[in-house]
Amino acid sequence: MPSSTQGQTITCKAAIAWKPKEPLVIQEIEVAPPQAEEVRVKVTHTSLCHTDVFFWENEGFFPCIFGHEAAGIVESVGEKVTELEEGDHVVLLFTGECKSCKQCKSDKTNLCANLKVDPMRSTMRSDNKTRFLTKQGDPIYHFLNVSSFSEYTVVEAGCAAKIDLSIPLSRACLFACGIPTGVGAVWNTAKVEKGSTVVIFGLGAVGLAVAEGSKIAGAERIIGVDVNPNKFELGKKFGVTEFLNPKDSNRPIEDVIKGMTDGGADYCFECVGNVDLMLAAFESCHDGWGRTVLIGIEVRPVTLGMHPMKLFHGKEIKGSTFGDFKGKSQIPDLLKMYSENVLKVDEYITHELRFEEINKAFDLLKSGQSLRTVMHL
Amino acid sequence: MPSSTQGQTITCKAAIAWKPKEPLVIQEIEVAPPQAEEVRVKVTHTSLCHTDVFFWENEGFFPCIFGHEAAGIVESVGEKVTELEEGDHVVLLFTGECKSCKQCKSDKTNLCANLKVDPMRSTMRSDNKTRFLTKQGDPIYHFLNVSSFSEYTVVEAGCAAKIDLSIPLSRACLFACGIPTGVGAVWNTAKVEKGSTVVIFGLGAVGLAVAEGSKIAGAERIIGVDVNPNKFELGKKFGVTEFLNPKDSNRPIEDVIKGMTDGGADYCFECVGNVDLMLAAFESCHDGWGRTVLIGIEVRPVTLGMHPMKLFHGKEIKGSTFGDFKGKSQIPDLLKMYSENVLKVDEYITHELRFEEINKAFDLLKSGQSLRTVMHL
Repeated sequence: MPSSTQGQTITCKAAIAWKPKEPLVIQEIEVAPPQAEEVRVKVTHTSLCHTDVFFWENEGFFPCIFGHEAAGIVESVGEKVTELEEGDHVVLLFTGECKSCKQCKSDKTNLCANLKVDPMRSTMRSDNKTRFLTKQGDPIYHFLNVSSFSEYTVVEAGCAAKIDLSIPLSRACLFACGIPTGVGAVWNTAKVEKGSTVVIFGLGAVGLAVAEGSKIAGAERIIGVDVNPNKFELGKKFGVTEFLNPKDSNRPIEDVIKGMTDGGADYCFECVGNVDLMLAAFESCHDGWGRTVLIGIEVRPVTLGMHPMKLFHGKEIKGSTFGDFKGKSQIPDLLKMYSENVLKVDEYITHELRFEEINKAFDLLKSGQSLRTVMHL
Repeated sequence: MPSSTQGQTITCKAAIAWKPKEPLVIQEIEVAPPQAEEVRVKVTHTSLCHTDVFFWENEGFFPCIFGHEAAGIVESVGEKVTELEEGDHVVLLFTGECKSCKQCKSDKTNLCANLKVDPMRSTMRSDNKTRFLTKQGDPIYHFLNVSSFSEYTVVEAGCAAKIDLSIPLSRACLFACGIPTGVGAVWNTAKVEKGSTVVIFGLGAVGLAVAEGSKIAGAERIIGVDVNPNKFELGKKFGVTEFLNPKDSNRPIEDVIKGMTDGGADYCFECVGNVDLMLAAFESCHDGWGRTVLIGIEVRPVTLGMHPMKLFHGKEIKGSTFGDFKGKSQIPDLLKMYSENVLKVDEYITHELRFEEINKAFDLLKSGQSLRTVMHL
């Protein structure tokens, strides 16, 4: 039986970012029905990630509905949507799967040619229009294929992964970004092996997920690096075995790490998004096999200030997006690891708030008080 | 039965580079006996590689005996040398194997902690002295673990790979650098697969060996890039299927390549040593899986002028040294591929000269007339 709202515009509440750095404004908007190959989703839970904060502070398209770490229930589907139907529970994906491009057909990448992450895309693909309008009829822009700071959102069907009804949506939302990004960087990108030494730069939610993934992979030493000394106790819960605060030493962090690891770590993960830290991570890896995986997003106009011959020491450096997971295909399996108590989720959630308190979630993340705040819509 | 020269200083001819860019001078020198863990080798054949020319033109230690692509016969061995004895035929290695360091014990790297390539090392490891003296008793420096422009040389035992007596030394010498560097970059570093599209920047001997390795690996398209139009006919012999001369187009070479390969090559090899070409190679690779292997040596004080987010497109870039072969362990097997007519060798040799004509070999290589000139000592 189709929903009563199918094919209709829905009026609902959304948290709109009107200008950079200004508090979001919760107000009524109109959400158009999904077009072909799109689905409209009732967002039940969204958390807040640094990437939302970054684009809100800097380079977003305004007015905009941010939010990309979310889960919800399909309200209705557009034409040509065969894999999803009303009532399905879904995790929303900032990097989707069209399943028809060369990249989707390759097992070497998750970067779908059509639906990969693209912060510069602010409209839907089919008509380059938004599905969000103000009550006055003005467009509000989409963000990162998701736009979850709204009671209803419209996404490409390739950007919604159907999940088991038994998974609580309030926990599933973390599988839309932070957790897969961290554990996947370890398992899929770096391929950390038993007995390895791992260094993690930045112990936010993603860095902690790297620690958890490394522990599950059998890493012997998991060294966390953070300027916040409180992160060590927290990190231990996720598998961190040693802690380094760069402020505690006058020596370059790479020298400290090389000294404590007999020449360098096997794997380094940069979870901050700072080019100097990326280079320090690369230097901290062992000659011959050290692998540096970049996860943090560096958006400043900088270059990798590295002599090309540095790449001749047998070390690798590469970025990892969404943990190299193909979202639609693989996130349901990853959620099974949560159901089976292999993967933590609750431990990342430091706060739960009502949607109306969304600006508080921004404050908590910016001030370093929260890992993940889940908002209930 | 020990050789009559064992333990004695040998007086022989060598081609000495006294000053940068000045013709080598063939003159008598004294070659000291090998010390512990060293061997003295009668060099029978040496070829000339661009790396010799580069250091002769720029940054070598002078006076110096250059040459690192060579084969010969062990004349005598120092104490503690167990794997080699007088009369053994050997290929000399600019990147050796001590077989006792962490790197040698790992199957992930050929970069021996003790004997890896090091252009800054100009003396022997045990005593930081040279084994070459002028008739006046002044030291002459070593180069790249080999110094083959001399009738006799002294090398670390880990820098000499014993080979089968049936292999002609005049051909084995090419297995000291060019051929393994090229084919190994394809098989060991890039791991090119059947059906792949490969682009090779620079069709010198190493670039041609990359083509040959790619053909053997089953690559479907092998696109050679060179500013010398004569290289296409030559390249075909080694497997090149298409040719691009950057001078033939006003468009950036990466745009041309992306256009002809539906978005980019699977594998790109930079065989020149120019940072701009390295970046062009990286750009020419397909998003999601493209792998760029750097082989050419860039010695200018430059940096990789690439935004770090370029590393988030699923592409890899890494250097390859000596084709990631462990020389002592693996070069003998590679030579079997020559014996079995799987690998070409003769086709790389454009000239054969007497040792006394060594300056002519420099001229031929600098002017682009030769691929490899083998000198008979």
